[in-house]
Amino acid sequence: MKKIVVAYSGGLDTSFCLKYLQNKGYQVHTVLVNTGGFSVAELEAITTRAYELGSFQHTNCNIIEKYYQKAIKYLVFGNVLKNNTYPLSVSAERVFQALEIVRYAQKIGADAIAHGSTGAGNDQIRFDLIFQTIAPEIKIITPIRDLALSRQEEVDYLEKQGVFYSWEKAQYSINKGIWGTSVGGKETLTSHLPLPDEAYPSPLQKTTPENVVLEFEKGELIAVNGEKAAPTTNIAKLESLATAFAIGRDIHVGDTIIGIKGRVGFEAAAPLIIIKAHHLLEKHVLSKWQQYWKEQLGNWYGMLFHEGQYLDPVMRNIETFLTDTQQTVSGTVTVTLKPYHFSLDGIVSEHDLMNTELGQYGEMNNAWTATDAKGFIKILGNAQTIYSQVNALNYD
Amino acid sequence: MKKIVVAYSGGLDTSFCLKYLQNKGYQVHTVLVNTGGFSVAELEAITTRAYELGSFQHTNCNIIEKYYQKAIKYLVFGNVLKNNTYPLSVSAERVFQALEIVRYAQKIGADAIAHGSTGAGNDQIRFDLIFQTIAPEIKIITPIRDLALSRQEEVDYLEKQGVFYSWEKAQYSINKGIWGTSVGGKETLTSHLPLPDEAYPSPLQKTTPENVVLEFEKGELIAVNGEKAAPTTNIAKLESLATAFAIGRDIHVGDTIIGIKGRVGFEAAAPLIIIKAHHLLEKHVLSKWQQYWKEQLGNWYGMLFHEGQYLDPVMRNIETFLTDTQQTVSGTVTVTLKPYHFSLDGIVSEHDLMNTELGQYGEMNNAWTATDAKGFIKILGNAQTIYSQVNALNYD
Amino acid sequence: MKKIVVAYSGGLDTSFCLKYLQNKGYQVHTVLVNTGGFSVAELEAITTRAYELGSFQHTNCNIIEKYYQKAIKYLVFGNVLKNNTYPLSVSAERVFQALEIVRYAQKIGADAIAHGSTGAGNDQIRFDLIFQTIAPEIKIITPIRDLALSRQEEVDYLEKQGVFYSWEKAQYSINKGIWGTSVGGKETLTSHLPLPDEAYPSPLQKTTPENVVLEFEKGELIAVNGEKAAPTTNIAKLESLATAFAIGRDIHVGDTIIGIKGRVGFEAAAPLIIIKAHHLLEKHVLSKWQQYWKEQLGNWYGMLFHEGQYLDPVMRNIETFLTDTQQTVSGTVTVTLKPYHFSLDGIVSEHDLMNTELGQYGEMNNAWTATDAKGFIKILGNAQTIYSQVNALNYD
Amino acid sequence: MKKIVVAYSGGLDTSFCLKYLQNKGYQVHTVLVNTGGFSVAELEAITTRAYELGSFQHTNCNIIEKYYQKAIKYLVFGNVLKNNTYPLSVSAERVFQALEIVRYAQKIGADAIAHGSTGAGNDQIRFDLIFQTIAPEIKIITPIRDLALSRQEEVDYLEKQGVFYSWEKAQYSINKGIWGTSVGGKETLTSHLPLPDEAYPSPLQKTTPENVVLEFEKGELIAVNGEKAAPTTNIAKLESLATAFAIGRDIHVGDTIIGIKGRVGFEAAAPLIIIKAHHLLEKHVLSKWQQYWKEQLGNWYGMLFHEGQYLDPVMRNIETFLTDTQQTVSGTVTVTLKPYHFSLDGIVSEHDLMNTELGQYGEMNNAWTATDAKGFIKILGNAQTIYSQVNALNYD
Repeated sequence: MKKIVVAYSGGLDTSFCLKYLQNKGYQVHTVLVNTGGFSVAELEAITTRAYELGSFQHTNCNIIEKYYQKAIKYLVFGNVLKNNTYPLSVSAERVFQALEIVRYAQKIGADAIAHGSTGAGNDQIRFDLIFQTIAPEIKIITPIRDLALSRQEEVDYLEKQGVFYSWEKAQYSINKGIWGTSVGGKETLTSHLPLPDEAYPSPLQKTTPENVVLEFEKGELIAVNGEKAAPTTNIAKLESLATAFAIGRDIHVGDTIIGIKGRVGFEAAAPLIIIKAHHLLEKHVLSKWQQYWKEQLGNWYGMLFHEGQYLDPVMRNIETFLTDTQQTVSGTVTVTLKPYHFSLDGIVSEHDLMNTELGQYGEMNNAWTATDAKGFIKILGNAQTIYSQVNALNYD
Repeated sequence: MKKIVVAYSGGLDTSFCLKYLQNKGYQVHTVLVNTGGFSVAELEAITTRAYELGSFQHTNCNIIEKYYQKAIKYLVFGNVLKNNTYPLSVSAERVFQALEIVRYAQKIGADAIAHGSTGAGNDQIRFDLIFQTIAPEIKIITPIRDLALSRQEEVDYLEKQGVFYSWEKAQYSINKGIWGTSVGGKETLTSHLPLPDEAYPSPLQKTTPENVVLEFEKGELIAVNGEKAAPTTNIAKLESLATAFAIGRDIHVGDTIIGIKGRVGFEAAAPLIIIKAHHLLEKHVLSKWQQYWKEQLGNWYGMLFHEGQYLDPVMRNIETFLTDTQQTVSGTVTVTLKPYHFSLDGIVSEHDLMNTELGQYGEMNNAWTATDAKGFIKILGNAQTIYSQVNALNYD
Repeated sequence: MKKIVVAYSGGLDTSFCLKYLQNKGYQVHTVLVNTGGFSVAELEAITTRAYELGSFQHTNCNIIEKYYQKAIKYLVFGNVLKNNTYPLSVSAERVFQALEIVRYAQKIGADAIAHGSTGAGNDQIRFDLIFQTIAPEIKIITPIRDLALSRQEEVDYLEKQGVFYSWEKAQYSINKGIWGTSVGGKETLTSHLPLPDEAYPSPLQKTTPENVVLEFEKGELIAVNGEKAAPTTNIAKLESLATAFAIGRDIHVGDTIIGIKGRVGFEAAAPLIIIKAHHLLEKHVLSKWQQYWKEQLGNWYGMLFHEGQYLDPVMRNIETFLTDTQQTVSGTVTVTLKPYHFSLDGIVSEHDLMNTELGQYGEMNNAWTATDAKGFIKILGNAQTIYSQVNALNYD
Repeated sequence: MKKIVVAYSGGLDTSFCLKYLQNKGYQVHTVLVNTGGFSVAELEAITTRAYELGSFQHTNCNIIEKYYQKAIKYLVFGNVLKNNTYPLSVSAERVFQALEIVRYAQKIGADAIAHGSTGAGNDQIRFDLIFQTIAPEIKIITPIRDLALSRQEEVDYLEKQGVFYSWEKAQYSINKGIWGTSVGGKETLTSHLPLPDEAYPSPLQKTTPENVVLEFEKGELIAVNGEKAAPTTNIAKLESLATAFAIGRDIHVGDTIIGIKGRVGFEAAAPLIIIKAHHLLEKHVLSKWQQYWKEQLGNWYGMLFHEGQYLDPVMRNIETFLTDTQQTVSGTVTVTLKPYHFSLDGIVSEHDLMNTELGQYGEMNNAWTATDAKGFIKILGNAQTIYSQVNALNYD
């Protein structure tokens, strides 16, 4: 009997896959990869459902720590916001779910892997690229993509098999992980409509501004308000503090891997605050060109990651570069949380390059003289002056 | 008698220069270049003061339109925010003030130009680079930089000359122009303190959210809420609408041209809203690589502009590039103004590349099949698969 | 009867397509697009063969001028050498052949277009991308790709149809155009073997070095050895002078669009000399940052062009940028032709930024003093000095 | 008595400095830093001269290994050729001479450092930037720059002191190190003249082509013609083989740090061959984007290095990145040496990504089907097709 691993979430599409593939004669192993978006109760419910639907073996894999160490850490180092907006909440997660599933499949000697993606989105690419690279010998099966079924057809199929769950489609599709929650709905299918307040999972609960102090060590968030803990714990804690202010909502508009434009809402309070705070700290402790090249490589890293090219060897090189730049990125950043937004108050760092003995911006100082400044400017202008003289330019 | 042009603002430093240079035997011509930060009453008061202090001829030059056409327009096309934060409020203005002053000096046949900069900041560089490139034959005189005087020494000098204005230093130094207002104070000399609310010129006046509709044509803001007007008029109108919500406050931390770090507060509601709205519209109408290269060249343009290298010929080439990209950047963007922040609701454009007949993200469509998608992914993964096989990588 | 346009070269693959599609019931229109690689006699022979094989209408399109104006010109402006080696001899040509063929197909109201590419190379992508973008309503038919026939099977098919040409495969496959000749052979299928001398079309004929003077005006080659002519004429003339020295041979190793590595020999004397001479002239007349950004955008332009993404709108933006940078790229470059290689002697240009009154490298001069230089260096070093002090670095 | 370290080469300028500073009352310590350009006999002669001129202590420091490990290695990893031509022969060397001299000065507790640079070139900047960053407490003294003396004035001064060496200026000034020899002369002060054959140190000695096999391991040259040795030994060996063919001559035209254009001849056979061979190997073993980003960072590294900004912390980050990319850059490259030029025959590497089981360029293969290819191209073209439809473009 052939073994298949189904990437299982408990939803309609993957439940259909489970039943459909079992009927095709497969021994179905269901795997849920938790990147921080599932409660214990949810995981138990999904496990129960998987067995009810005929899973031979169901496994919940918690990869939060691995996901942090191999992905989120670098997304912070690189201040990665796709199109200057989106912290890759779903895209990074999919890649790591795929990596975990293919390893699981290899471990149990599976013949095939199935996932519930359609043929119209980015997720199919993120899954397939990882699977076919790491385990080209394992077949990939995608019933939803291949059969192009409607939700009703899937429900009908399941009911014929005696499966009668309630599959009503939520008004807004939510995908939650430690690095943010995506929100899709009828508005995100248009170009002009914002998502309504109620589409976002975290309602406004507080209106009086609060300070929160983030401590970074070599680029990693090691403490919130003075309490040291693992970065993943700190992320969750900050998320809890900030979502009370309904911070972190926005809509990402981007070019998909398949060449069309897409729009997706998200709520990602902790990722946005951490990235902006980390970036501010870097402005104080890194040289101009360190910042320049970090931005170049960080954005590229985000783009390839978003597009599922996580296994391109340049990704490892960029991770090495980013890590190397973080040696002095240590200190605290104070953030003020306010309704729907936040502001950065300032930083304290022993590596701060501002206000040193050597010079203070705009103030008299002893490090150089007016004569030095004039010599500097004269020579700094040489190239322009020569160009202007040779080409007799008129700048009017 | 030698003629000198003094870049005059009515403040202590440039008033000292005026009197000091007159005493040195110069015929002093004072020039104020208005980039949108002075009211009629302020201009009249400065004119009066200039003559009281002994100006031979005082002139107020209004360059708002020229400044828009030759600078702000490109800062919008390029979505230019220095260090992802600062719309170059002061830096772009200084360059254009310098250009106007040197032209004025050439017109009247001046022997020298004076400005009130110290030797510790960016402005001396922006002024001198323009002056020495365009008119190397005109001498540059900078009494404040050369004499390294304290404010009290300047006041004492003026009082000995019978000049008794009130020169009390404001708690916050403010520099206003059409593209934003900078705010300096004791907090911006630290790394950790935010500016207090009262440091910002525009207090919160409204708390109920309001929509505003911005219409762009080839990248330029041609209408606000449906009323067509010149872009400069639209900028002022939007500024007025948005400052009622106290929008646009932030602190820029950056590397100065002289190599030290500096921190400056600013309030720039209209610039920030226009740039973010324009950028959103571009996400819908430009190709992925158009966006990529616009970001590269826009950021570089902003960096060189900020550092006073406006006359480098590459700046003209980048302006040409940016203009060429704006052919399809037309449409409306709806923005919601809220207390202290704003959100972008969406766009409408006939050039919108989203939701075309050809494909809709995440939905079934007729433009390609599951077979096409699988072929696409297989070949897209070729390079990674080969790399993985040749190098026998272990991704765990 | 359905009309089909076949991109016809007279070779085995496209002759098979012609006959095969005629047998499928199409009215076959054959088109050869000449980019400079065919003599009059060759064109006549191909025309004769096309009709013999059953072409309803054969057309030879000469697009050399258009190809120069819309492609080669920009490849020179951008100093485009793929992977620092290859002047895009075949890739640019294919795109322009595709553009011409699809226009022809639209003009005659064709139902389909056929080309002879296999499924394993870059050319299929260059053709299909242009066809499907410009005329999505016209069907693309590729018998060689679809049927995966061997050469012998094609010959057998044709012989059954009474076609008995000699189809012996040349030892080296040659593709010639105005911008270079590609050379493939058994060696280029390996990684370690060079092509033998005799594989290259132009044998060494001269050994005594000769000078040639190239005159550029706004980046275009307007004269060779003082004789003004159209750039396409000048390219051909220079090619003739330089191939006598067997100049311009090399092997390009690159990443194909389908993700595998490929290796192809080429001979491109005129393209290499023109690009290197043009680049040298630019080093004298452009600013540092003009050169920097030209290299960035030129290389990107070459990459997208090579990969068939010629219709991406960013390509038009880059062309505009490159053209704008060429305003001062005028002057002469003297080149010495030698056996198998060439050297650049120097340039003369009224826009030359070297050796002006303002300063001469390494020599005493009047433009600045030792004091200026020391002030310049002091301030230039500020950032590093601060970094070093704050971080107490040890550089040993 | 105050101690001063003089960077001493035995030439007129530094001999003048030695004597002049001794007369000013300094205890003069002379240091020659050898980066591979001095023979034992030359070093002995310089040592003798130093003591004859009054050096208190003369030291010859051999830093070839350190220079390789901390500089040349990365110049190879990054394929660094400034302006696509120049292997930084002099610029990298100056930085490392400065580093050695300032360490020496710190070790002996010197009060000052002197070097013989003028105020018109790049070297003063390379020296001063290193000195003032690492030892801001040590004074920098530059008699030639400050006194602006002519050669004759220096000779006269020395003769008055009883120093009567022959100081005739060589027709061509030569600066030799392991990474190349620079050549300056009257021709390099023009834009149009090449250097004559006799200006280059290595005359043509062989005309019959010879193969040489270079073996790289993780980017470093570990063997020449099968003989393993230290990379510095291999460089010298290859230089010796290749200069017999008079390979490696060219002229670099570049923008100096002080904003003017400069031109310098050089002979650098081994550096050019190693970089080109290394680059070819990388084309076979690195992914497309690894090559892209290596080029970006390598070029930037070369630019900052050339301009003396070696201590910018981004340089360390780039070195880490480049090293990380070299893990698979192992294999042999065969080069053919010919009179005045060389060609690359091919490579052999176990990491070669070409000609794998998965696919061979242009040939039938089993890794994907025609259907896959067509699906790939259809989706690859989506973005362009949408753009074309939405904007109704006409590409004629």
